[in-house]
Amino acid sequence: MSEKLIGAAIFGQSGGPTAVINASAYGVIRAALDAEEITKVYGAANGIKGVLEDRLYVMDEEDPEELKLLLHTPSSALGSCRYKIADPEKDDTDYKRILEIFKKYNIRYFFYNGGNDSMDTCNKVSRYMESVGYDCRVMGVPKTIDNDLYGTDHCPGFGSAAKYIATSCMEINKDARVYDNGMITIVEIMGRHAGWLAASAALATEFGSGPDLIYLPETDFDMDRFLADVQRVYDANGKVFVAVSEGIHYADGRFVSEAKTSATDGFGHAQLGGLAALLASIVKERTGAKVRGIELSLLQRCGAHLASATDIEEARSAGEEAVRQAVSGVSGMMIAFQRETVDGAYRCKLQLLPLSEVANYEKKIPLEWINAQHNGLNHAFIDYVLPLIQGEPKLPLVQSLPHYARLKKVLAK
Amino acid sequence: MSEKLIGAAIFGQSGGPTAVINASAYGVIRAALDAEEITKVYGAANGIKGVLEDRLYVMDEEDPEELKLLLHTPSSALGSCRYKIADPEKDDTDYKRILEIFKKYNIRYFFYNGGNDSMDTCNKVSRYMESVGYDCRVMGVPKTIDNDLYGTDHCPGFGSAAKYIATSCMEINKDARVYDNGMITIVEIMGRHAGWLAASAALATEFGSGPDLIYLPETDFDMDRFLADVQRVYDANGKVFVAVSEGIHYADGRFVSEAKTSATDGFGHAQLGGLAALLASIVKERTGAKVRGIELSLLQRCGAHLASATDIEEARSAGEEAVRQAVSGVSGMMIAFQRETVDGAYRCKLQLLPLSEVANYEKKIPLEWINAQHNGLNHAFIDYVLPLIQGEPKLPLVQSLPHYARLKKVLAK
Repeated sequence: MSEKLIGAAIFGQSGGPTAVINASAYGVIRAALDAEEITKVYGAANGIKGVLEDRLYVMDEEDPEELKLLLHTPSSALGSCRYKIADPEKDDTDYKRILEIFKKYNIRYFFYNGGNDSMDTCNKVSRYMESVGYDCRVMGVPKTIDNDLYGTDHCPGFGSAAKYIATSCMEINKDARVYDNGMITIVEIMGRHAGWLAASAALATEFGSGPDLIYLPETDFDMDRFLADVQRVYDANGKVFVAVSEGIHYADGRFVSEAKTSATDGFGHAQLGGLAALLASIVKERTGAKVRGIELSLLQRCGAHLASATDIEEARSAGEEAVRQAVSGVSGMMIAFQRETVDGAYRCKLQLLPLSEVANYEKKIPLEWINAQHNGLNHAFIDYVLPLIQGEPKLPLVQSLPHYARLKKVLAK
Repeated sequence: MSEKLIGAAIFGQSGGPTAVINASAYGVIRAALDAEEITKVYGAANGIKGVLEDRLYVMDEEDPEELKLLLHTPSSALGSCRYKIADPEKDDTDYKRILEIFKKYNIRYFFYNGGNDSMDTCNKVSRYMESVGYDCRVMGVPKTIDNDLYGTDHCPGFGSAAKYIATSCMEINKDARVYDNGMITIVEIMGRHAGWLAASAALATEFGSGPDLIYLPETDFDMDRFLADVQRVYDANGKVFVAVSEGIHYADGRFVSEAKTSATDGFGHAQLGGLAALLASIVKERTGAKVRGIELSLLQRCGAHLASATDIEEARSAGEEAVRQAVSGVSGMMIAFQRETVDGAYRCKLQLLPLSEVANYEKKIPLEWINAQHNGLNHAFIDYVLPLIQGEPKLPLVQSLPHYARLKKVLAK
């Protein structure tokens, strides 16, 4: 146990929202409010941007019962950002400003909740504070529906998105098969470089009502083979249900959706979308069948009403553990999950992973979990994902509609 | 009480699927199996098409526990159709065939579950059987997420779709507001001529997280006014959430989405869709903001996991009541709902409505429930819809995923 570090804490949320990112927020904020070493708890408005712009909410001012509602409130309650921070060695303007804010509020604890890019930000802040000798403990809390963070068995947010996708695909499949004429349904699922989310549609098939074909970015997409696959199922059944990852790409690396888009997000990623409609028009032209393209869009990442209780609890505990570790002297680490099997049952163990190892790597689905035809998943994937979607949370409702946290968001001065 | 009529029954499902149409199926099938006057219960494969093609499933062969799962299985378990039957006075080919099948299986009870077009089919079958003196009781069971059936306070399927739409809009709204840059979100909701479904998005706003603007087919759409509305909210908040009914149209009757589509469904309705993308591109061009179009697509009508317990129970009881009334001598009627307020609480009373009155009329939202600017709903609409979404059913789950009915579907010979 290292020396006690007394001071205030900042918690920030970054990157795309999830159904459970606020469960991690609750874990961090509640534990930080309860930690005697932490004198005050600030929530950064829009992640690191709120730090740079001195927009910090005083979490000590919030009603504890309202904070608890964060466990079931989707999306980033404090606001998020997609801000690409420079390398401190190349341009330290932002870091000088962050240090200034840290000194202004006597910040000694910094908790940052996000995916790959956010862990990179977190790592850079950690390195900079160390380099200038400012005593501050920096911890990363993982989050991404994409499930692509390196070094952790899985990521908070993924299990709930997977459950939403599996349930929705089961329902869509029921709907798309009611008429006795031909019908081809193409569902587009998020996932830029890793196919974890689209792969989760395999759960629907496993439980009796899901896609016939699934295409992932882990393998190269071949339009002719795809069309042959669809035609084969169509000829056999008269109905085809296809799930595709938004990030499917040709062998030369071009996204299949590329022709349709041009804009980029803050990190220089191509803005994808419209793939379902594009594939639907190609398939319709080729087969003459009735074809429907469906994009799960934002719904899949903010579907808190279908959240996995396992995911909520793991997200909360990751936040709590980050505070516990920081207070005990740890810094520069991300909380990671290790899967254990105890008496045949899934258990999730928390670990520490150096931020420098996790930042900017992307974890993809092992190729041996993908079938030989590259149009579906093997059972190893089902075994992997099934424990992550378990459990139905008891959602707070008002008039049978979700009851979300409404924070006061009192700005620090 | 009229004379006892002994014979077999056919139940059929028609038109678009809903989250609770199988709850009505359960109501009819269970009550028919239990009725001593009914000797055998057949389920028509794909509605009236299954009758014409002699594809009838023997419901007596089904496992009672599996049948019960129909209460929570979305979409039409027996298959549906969009088959436009001729006027019997003009072309009685189909009716002669139906009579032949009725005689073959000694059908004395015909229950048909569907919307406007299906009630028209039901009415025509009823008239024909009467005209040829074939003793048969014909009953309509209402169903439509569109909620546009005449003479009934509301329709089974609508409450669950409304709940799905309201919940999803609450979640989308949370997601679409996380960044501190401008964002305009346009959600397209089903509803060809009546705006009940899109209007239900107002529930999300009422409970704190929903659309700023809602456009319905009950009023003429004016693109310039729409763009001015969006710009005004955008200038004030930097975020805009718009819900539009797929059926919004200009003053001359042209659908706003019309330029994008050409195909038609079996009844000659234009196939709508792609409106969200179209409006998003127009708004993007005008405002320069980041704009996202989202189509709720099939998800909104098959979202059984978010079904209203009230809706499920009403759907079931409508089916059951149709059998009870038919057995007691009633024919040519649809079960309708009358709203009552007992001690301040909502109650739904079942009524009989002549099929001839309900067929082919469309019930729209009263204009006085729409605001003066034609871009939102008044509180009278909230009061109307709120009781219909109440109650969370206890869903049968396997591994935290829906457990649907799997019928044996033994074909009658």
